[in-house]
Amino acid sequence: MGRYFKSDNTAAIAPELLAAISAANDGYASGYGDDAWSRRLDARYTQLFEHDVRVFPVISGTAANALALATLVPPYGAVLTHSEAHIVRDECGAPEFMSGGARLILIDGPGAKLTPQSIERTLAANPTAVHTVQPRAVSITQATELGTVYTPAEVRALADCAHANGLALHMDGARFANAVAALGCAPADVTARAGVDVLSFGASKNGAMSAEAVVFFDTTRVADFELRRKRAGHLISKMRYVSAQLLAYVENDLWLRLARRANSLTSRIAAVVPELLVLPPEANELFLKLDAARIAALRSKGFEFYDWGAVDSGEIRFVVSWSQSEDDVEALCQALASLR
Amino acid sequence: MGRYFKSDNTAAIAPELLAAISAANDGYASGYGDDAWSRRLDARYTQLFEHDVRVFPVISGTAANALALATLVPPYGAVLTHSEAHIVRDECGAPEFMSGGARLILIDGPGAKLTPQSIERTLAANPTAVHTVQPRAVSITQATELGTVYTPAEVRALADCAHANGLALHMDGARFANAVAALGCAPADVTARAGVDVLSFGASKNGAMSAEAVVFFDTTRVADFELRRKRAGHLISKMRYVSAQLLAYVENDLWLRLARRANSLTSRIAAVVPELLVLPPEANELFLKLDAARIAALRSKGFEFYDWGAVDSGEIRFVVSWSQSEDDVEALCQALASLR
Amino acid sequence: MGRYFKSDNTAAIAPELLAAISAANDGYASGYGDDAWSRRLDARYTQLFEHDVRVFPVISGTAANALALATLVPPYGAVLTHSEAHIVRDECGAPEFMSGGARLILIDGPGAKLTPQSIERTLAANPTAVHTVQPRAVSITQATELGTVYTPAEVRALADCAHANGLALHMDGARFANAVAALGCAPADVTARAGVDVLSFGASKNGAMSAEAVVFFDTTRVADFELRRKRAGHLISKMRYVSAQLLAYVENDLWLRLARRANSLTSRIAAVVPELLVLPPEANELFLKLDAARIAALRSKGFEFYDWGAVDSGEIRFVVSWSQSEDDVEALCQALASLR
Amino acid sequence: MGRYFKSDNTAAIAPELLAAISAANDGYASGYGDDAWSRRLDARYTQLFEHDVRVFPVISGTAANALALATLVPPYGAVLTHSEAHIVRDECGAPEFMSGGARLILIDGPGAKLTPQSIERTLAANPTAVHTVQPRAVSITQATELGTVYTPAEVRALADCAHANGLALHMDGARFANAVAALGCAPADVTARAGVDVLSFGASKNGAMSAEAVVFFDTTRVADFELRRKRAGHLISKMRYVSAQLLAYVENDLWLRLARRANSLTSRIAAVVPELLVLPPEANELFLKLDAARIAALRSKGFEFYDWGAVDSGEIRFVVSWSQSEDDVEALCQALASLR
Repeated sequence: MGRYFKSDNTAAIAPELLAAISAANDGYASGYGDDAWSRRLDARYTQLFEHDVRVFPVISGTAANALALATLVPPYGAVLTHSEAHIVRDECGAPEFMSGGARLILIDGPGAKLTPQSIERTLAANPTAVHTVQPRAVSITQATELGTVYTPAEVRALADCAHANGLALHMDGARFANAVAALGCAPADVTARAGVDVLSFGASKNGAMSAEAVVFFDTTRVADFELRRKRAGHLISKMRYVSAQLLAYVENDLWLRLARRANSLTSRIAAVVPELLVLPPEANELFLKLDAARIAALRSKGFEFYDWGAVDSGEIRFVVSWSQSEDDVEALCQALASLR
Repeated sequence: MGRYFKSDNTAAIAPELLAAISAANDGYASGYGDDAWSRRLDARYTQLFEHDVRVFPVISGTAANALALATLVPPYGAVLTHSEAHIVRDECGAPEFMSGGARLILIDGPGAKLTPQSIERTLAANPTAVHTVQPRAVSITQATELGTVYTPAEVRALADCAHANGLALHMDGARFANAVAALGCAPADVTARAGVDVLSFGASKNGAMSAEAVVFFDTTRVADFELRRKRAGHLISKMRYVSAQLLAYVENDLWLRLARRANSLTSRIAAVVPELLVLPPEANELFLKLDAARIAALRSKGFEFYDWGAVDSGEIRFVVSWSQSEDDVEALCQALASLR
Repeated sequence: MGRYFKSDNTAAIAPELLAAISAANDGYASGYGDDAWSRRLDARYTQLFEHDVRVFPVISGTAANALALATLVPPYGAVLTHSEAHIVRDECGAPEFMSGGARLILIDGPGAKLTPQSIERTLAANPTAVHTVQPRAVSITQATELGTVYTPAEVRALADCAHANGLALHMDGARFANAVAALGCAPADVTARAGVDVLSFGASKNGAMSAEAVVFFDTTRVADFELRRKRAGHLISKMRYVSAQLLAYVENDLWLRLARRANSLTSRIAAVVPELLVLPPEANELFLKLDAARIAALRSKGFEFYDWGAVDSGEIRFVVSWSQSEDDVEALCQALASLR
Repeated sequence: MGRYFKSDNTAAIAPELLAAISAANDGYASGYGDDAWSRRLDARYTQLFEHDVRVFPVISGTAANALALATLVPPYGAVLTHSEAHIVRDECGAPEFMSGGARLILIDGPGAKLTPQSIERTLAANPTAVHTVQPRAVSITQATELGTVYTPAEVRALADCAHANGLALHMDGARFANAVAALGCAPADVTARAGVDVLSFGASKNGAMSAEAVVFFDTTRVADFELRRKRAGHLISKMRYVSAQLLAYVENDLWLRLARRANSLTSRIAAVVPELLVLPPEANELFLKLDAARIAALRSKGFEFYDWGAVDSGEIRFVVSWSQSEDDVEALCQALASLR
């Protein structure tokens, strides 16, 4: 591979988490979550989020999102979400599948963010009757697909709007660590205290092997989640290895340290070419806009990254992972500087 | 834990496979199966099965079975299978879910085995019309849920029967290694050469972390499997760690060595109490029938195992894993001997 | 056509019901059930069943059954029912489809009937856990697929058993009129007063055009039925024509008069050949067992009927409709007598 | 009721079609489409459309659309359609339900119409990969939800665009008669000869009781439609009454005569207030824009119609049915004239 900036989900496992897997590899442990590691999750994450939570490990973000939404929304239901959302663009219809055919109602908006206004406008344009799908949830991404971050106040306003309209608030936190690191707030500030009902708590993009957790802040909403998870093939027999990672991940702020590093390197890169930024990066994703020649020049130097947005938009995306080498970052900074 | 014989899916990761995970943990690797390990799978398993195959890693047996069947059978289809099958009793309706509502048509029979006769009889009793579900597949388990093993000739006869009736043959190989070890045949003898179309190749019960593979012998049947896998949240970003295990698992016959050990220990236990056996054990599961007092006596000595069959049937199940300690086995042998 | 005894669902519309359709055909009427006829249904059927009910017209028995069950049972749920049930054998998996993949758990038993004992035995053999489907309903057919009839006491016992186990009781009443006519009881005696939660009230087999009703005795269970009906394409815009039939059908005991005639003709036929009866007919279906030569002889005389049961079982089924001609019945009686 | 202009789906049955029902009500007729009327449909509609077609009756437009799309599109598929489409706004997610969770991808555009350009733009913005839903069909409405009509050339261009991109073209023809009447073309000109693959041929809005037909112009696409129809409870036993209507409907141009009358009355109304028209009406729907006081004035005079578009947009919709009285139309013309 060249200098790789395509996605943080392709990075290796952080040493601390591989060590946690090894440490858990001792003899028998009851299956399907009835092991010592898994049984500690609720208490540990209750402490982390300063709120009584129920925590359910799964192995992919798509599973976390789709199972969470399927629990919140009936088959004839609908989820309001941004048109750029991962659940819309990158999950092959998993939310529709897991829910039995619920609909995603798409909302546009700058920075891949929803606002109370855009939600209200969308609801007004979709009055309900027996002839229509029934909105039951809002799903936001934190950090967003454009690398922006919802502030606690923004989340609070969205939750208030959602709840006032009878909708649950789901947060896709595939890059939740990067968002919290960027905000410098407590995890609770953008979740439990801000009115989030269910969080897809991601770890795979930030150092874990294949470890995500569905965290219910409103524990009455757990409902039949466990049956749905089993039925979808996501109740793993050897769950201890996922749970052990999820415990180690939040120990001694490991998750935040990893995320802070990625965010910081991202900022360093952004500072080189402020005039090329599509948006000021708030977490660990960087969107630049430049002409085809300079894009080709970057690729010829071995940098790997994705085109973004519309075809020939000139937008490109860099994602910086917890494991990005200083060398790669420095090389990218120099290459970008040379493009100016 | 006491002396644990409840299930092989609760054992630890075999050292060789944990080493494979560690070895794969080096820098970036493209996601979603486009990594060096995953790309080797088709060739490696083609060699193993002496037949061109396509191999798709997933993380649970339930996912492997349900995704395989959903690819073979339309929503209005049906799968003929034994009433004891794991897909019937232990997957919370995953095949129905993944397929969009296909039906499992249950067949009884000794040793948890299907026969061509029982399939023909069932088909005759379920004539098709526009008013009925449409049988499209047969699913058998190897080794079966009662620890018996289909011989190559038996599988061949089932495949011929299935194909003659327009049905695909799926094999749930959660304990495929134990079956092959017991048969002493080539893996191809009970799969590719015996007419199996799709195999759920299990590794998790025999030393892997969470690694299974769907192996298509009839590669035209792959069809839309990859989209279904993604849509179900089972296309893992960091697939290299699953694939690395699946490669190491079959290297130098590791899988068979692990399975042979489990099988051999099982036979040793069985030899102590031949008169208590419900069935002669052929792989690594042991079913005994004895009275409540003696069952209680075993439990009081710290042995952990499941009741089996009907309530108060007096049947109990022991499963011996690759990692079972000699000490546990010896203790069990003595305890059983003392019950006589 | 010859002398037609294949099914009552192929008979014409009763004159009174065609008249009801014509009478309703006057100018505009609000769509989707908000018309004068549909709005009277709840009150009229509340009177009929001596119990507060909610009534929802649909146009097929399959829709009635599948929508009712989908409302009672979650996707990971299960319905206990007889292996001969119409929902099992003749609806192409509609219950599985409408419910999002719930399972039918099949129970054998004489006369196509369930008993509390067979239900308890089945539940005991299917203990629930997160790994299993979750039984949530029992479905019985009245009259059954073998032409037998549940007495009020039998229904009561089944309801008590179902409710004690947390299951709802659904009754497929495709031939409910024939059952009530046979019992000579009040409709309430085998439904509301016997503990039935939801009834598929059939009229199409007894003189209506395409008119069935889902009747909820436990109105709290209506839940999201209306959305499910719409979503399945069964909320008809011009519902007045279905509702007008459902009103006329129960006016002045029309439904019972039609059913009594069919039952009575059935009994007359049965009396000719008591020794050939598979079961004593209780409603309007007749099952005979005789050799191939005599079956062929009947067909050669122009009688149309279905083979039944296993291939070459020698069982044949006659169904007598409300509209059967005296001439056809008399001819059949003579033909059967001549076979003796 | 007052002077009713809410919808054409609330009008009575046309006398000719009620007569067809009565005429078919003679003795037994085989069920489920194996009757004399249903068996004539393919030939009769092949003649009508000057193209070999397969015709499948159903009882609602929602069923026709959703079953057609479910046959064209896999569960992980997507349908491109206008954001105003009936399948989007008025079917409670039936397409998602029937297809097993496929997605509707929404396209905006004037007159509720798609164009090749808008389809191409949408496809470009939704590149496919294993991570995405897979577009497989385009669905257009004829006449559209805004009362506009696609010309044969427009349909041809859409079909070419769809086919070039591997998509099938479905036409929701709930008001197909009104469109054909408006165009003055042969039915084939906007369907078979224009590249439409499947048509939901509506009759219920134009005089039928509950009769629609799914017409396959590409008969290879019929595939498993019949099983899907049965499974959804839409294979009616007494299908002869639906088929008899579908035959009578197209006899002697009845369908076009009914539609022409509705269209003509609509034009007459529109001519009174050209300055209030949102769009020039092309079929039998009329959209006006006026202030709240005048809307209230119309309602106070007994006219019934729907508000349309965004809340407080001032848009209102009138639909004129085949059965609209001259008196109602004249009264509306005068009332509108008095508003000027």
